[in-house]
Amino acid sequence: MAEEKIPFKDWQKLNLRVGKIVRVENHPQADKLYLLEVDLGTEKRKLVAGLKQHYKPEELEGKLCIIFTNLEPAVIRDIKSEGMILAAVNEDKSKVIILEPEKDIELGSKIE
Amino acid sequence: MAEEKIPFKDWQKLNLRVGKIVRVENHPQADKLYLLEVDLGTEKRKLVAGLKQHYKPEELEGKLCIIFTNLEPAVIRDIKSEGMILAAVNEDKSKVIILEPEKDIELGSKIE
Repeated sequence: MAEEKIPFKDWQKLNLRVGKIVRVENHPQADKLYLLEVDLGTEKRKLVAGLKQHYKPEELEGKLCIIFTNLEPAVIRDIKSEGMILAAVNEDKSKVIILEPEKDIELGSKIE
Repeated sequence: MAEEKIPFKDWQKLNLRVGKIVRVENHPQADKLYLLEVDLGTEKRKLVAGLKQHYKPEELEGKLCIIFTNLEPAVIRDIKSEGMILAAVNEDKSKVIILEPEKDIELGSKIE
C-alpha cells in the first residue's frame, strides 16, 4: 500500500504521556463533548474530548489514559484543549475505546 | 516548557493501529529483543521489540496492542522490523508496559 513512511526522528518529536483522568464535565456548548482534567504527574491539563456518546463520566474518572501533550492547542467550541486523549476507533466509527497501559505505571511515563 | 508543538496534520500522517500479538520468538542475535508477529486484521506484520526483559512470551501472546504501522522500516540486528509496538516507559526505564485499548475492539482499528 502506498502510504507515506514516517522517519523515526519525526516520531520522536511527539510527546505521548501516561495520564490519569481526574475530572469529567459536560462541555457547556456541545452535546458530544466532555471537558476532561488529566493528571500527568508534574502538571494537570484540561482537554476537550469527543467521548460522551461512548463513555459515562464514572467510566472515565480515575482511569489511566494516553495524552498527546504537545499537539498544537486547539479551541473547540470556545474552550481551549491542551492536548488530545488517544482512542481506537473502528471502521464504522461505532466504537471509540480509549488506550491505557496494560499495567500500572507512573503518571507522566513517556510512550516510546 | 519550550517544547515543539505538533500541528494536527502531522499527527494525521501517523498510522497507529490495534493489533493482536500472535507469536513471540527470541531474536537469534540479541538477548533483549523479541520477534513479534502481530495480526492487524487485514495483514500480519513481523517486528522487533525490546520487551524481553519486561515480559515473558506467554504474557504477550494473544494480547491486544498498538502498532505504529507506517514507521520507516528498520533493520535491527539483521532482521527487518515492519513497525513498532507502543509501550510506556517510566523515568528510570525500569518499567516498560505495552499499551492496549481498554476494551475489546476490531483488529486494525485506527488510533485517533
